[in-house]
Amino acid sequence: MERKGKANLEDIARATGVSKMTVSRVLRGGSGFSDETRDRVVRAADALGYVPNRLAIAFGADQASTLVGVCVPRLTSGLFAHVLDGVDRALSRLGYQTMIGSHQHAVEQEEAWVRQVASWRPAGLILSGRHHTAATVDLLRHAGMPVVEIWDLTTSPIDMSVGFNHFDCGVEMGRFLVLRGRRRVGFVGALAGADVMSEARLDGFESALADAGLPLADKEMLLDTPGFYAGYYGIETLLARRRDLDAVYFHNDEMAIGALAWCQANGVRVPDDLGIAGWGGMEAASVLPRRLTTTVVPTTAIGKLAAEALVARLKGEHAEDVTVVPTRLVPGATV
Amino acid sequence: MERKGKANLEDIARATGVSKMTVSRVLRGGSGFSDETRDRVVRAADALGYVPNRLAIAFGADQASTLVGVCVPRLTSGLFAHVLDGVDRALSRLGYQTMIGSHQHAVEQEEAWVRQVASWRPAGLILSGRHHTAATVDLLRHAGMPVVEIWDLTTSPIDMSVGFNHFDCGVEMGRFLVLRGRRRVGFVGALAGADVMSEARLDGFESALADAGLPLADKEMLLDTPGFYAGYYGIETLLARRRDLDAVYFHNDEMAIGALAWCQANGVRVPDDLGIAGWGGMEAASVLPRRLTTTVVPTTAIGKLAAEALVARLKGEHAEDVTVVPTRLVPGATV
Repeated sequence: MERKGKANLEDIARATGVSKMTVSRVLRGGSGFSDETRDRVVRAADALGYVPNRLAIAFGADQASTLVGVCVPRLTSGLFAHVLDGVDRALSRLGYQTMIGSHQHAVEQEEAWVRQVASWRPAGLILSGRHHTAATVDLLRHAGMPVVEIWDLTTSPIDMSVGFNHFDCGVEMGRFLVLRGRRRVGFVGALAGADVMSEARLDGFESALADAGLPLADKEMLLDTPGFYAGYYGIETLLARRRDLDAVYFHNDEMAIGALAWCQANGVRVPDDLGIAGWGGMEAASVLPRRLTTTVVPTTAIGKLAAEALVARLKGEHAEDVTVVPTRLVPGATV
Repeated sequence: MERKGKANLEDIARATGVSKMTVSRVLRGGSGFSDETRDRVVRAADALGYVPNRLAIAFGADQASTLVGVCVPRLTSGLFAHVLDGVDRALSRLGYQTMIGSHQHAVEQEEAWVRQVASWRPAGLILSGRHHTAATVDLLRHAGMPVVEIWDLTTSPIDMSVGFNHFDCGVEMGRFLVLRGRRRVGFVGALAGADVMSEARLDGFESALADAGLPLADKEMLLDTPGFYAGYYGIETLLARRRDLDAVYFHNDEMAIGALAWCQANGVRVPDDLGIAGWGGMEAASVLPRRLTTTVVPTTAIGKLAAEALVARLKGEHAEDVTVVPTRLVPGATV
């Protein structure tokens, strides 16, 4: 690596024989110098690899930040990848930069991230979920910048909320399974129950079963991240205890697809012997030989709407405090 | 949203009745004031929701940046999600923050991102691939910060490189298919061939076939992103033209899994009638009823090693210019 170091105004002044002040005026598009001087300075800046220091500009001129921080629970979630893609494309189109972080489903880690990014004076923040530490909420209420809480809808947001209700997703799927005649229903979760949104779906699911006079027959709460493997081994563990189950609801589609693979490998017929329901609506769910019964979440749209609401508020334009983005139950063919 | 605005040193000075300079000294951990004054200032800063302005600190004190920029081709790639996770966890452990961007497989967009992030004077950058505009290379050679090019190994990096050789991945899979007796082999690609790394794999694949005296029988280059759908429809299109193919190599595992779903839905037996090979080693590939023939890429390890090399170089510790992270062909059961 060729290390010339960072060329600064002084280097350019030395190379061109004009004052540092003149170099600064030229590079900021000012006036009071000849065309010849301008050309000489621009050529030297180019040759020396000069990069304008936005930190200095921002500090000196109090220029508005164009940085938007986005924090998601996990970078390896396929659903959040599409949310981030929606945010990033919309912000980029609107002239902003995305700074992405993750908090591993821990509100304390989210607080640390918020403190760090807030110290950079961003234009705004997008957070996942409605659960935060009291200190995070307090800091953001006083930070004077737009904040959008996405994914888990709250009608009393810190500032704005864009999402849907996880409890209601669970209710809808619970009712659907009951309607399809399922009576001995289990659940396989992940992350040791640390994902509060998945817990809300499970609560809704159980409440729908209870409305039909049914208990949740059994549940297996894994420590793993909710991937294909977890679904594969989760269903095996659950069925080893309760072979009589007639349906299982999963943390997400990846786990449900892993479970379908286990069923196929072990001669369990879906949906005849066992119903399988996922959550999220990942693309793979719709090209399976039997389309997965699941809830489709409009991931990219949520990211896009959150970015647009944030920028609208920055510009003083109208933006709703609460934007509901409905999910959709896809009956599929696995229940 | 309660908008108190951003509390600054002046607000705290006004609230406590001490000078702005004293407030600044207290909050930066200086001396020359009573304990009573310190307590009063700290309490007021807390109550007013004061956040130290790192921009100002960085500009004033020339404090070293702890921001590392990472640019990937697509945020929706499952493989890059794991790379980012590896980078983010390692950097976070080492006391750095990750700023993620994407360039949609366009070197010009990468250049725009690099210019933007470089203007923030980051601690270092991690780029995906070895192909960049001449201006990007020139800027980074003179930027005086560590740069790691990941994923696509180059032995003449801008600064450092961590990855593997895509051409060689293709050669290895080509040889494997020939060894398994496949003679009429096709390829299904995506992104209209804009992914130069996938193109390198295809080149290697064709060269291995040529070594065995075989041409590439046919290829279908889709415009789509390389997902499950693309594989599903890609195999249908290719087989409509060449029903006699005995194996197909895909851009990635998602597409190969989409193709397996199409085969199952259309009575094409795998591997008897048709061999299917993927690339990447996504988790789903190993829980399929028949394990997918593919190349496993150590995604998380690449992210982790890149982050560690960057920080080592920042600290003046030893870091290799070129780190090879080998991939592994998994024979599976689909060829």
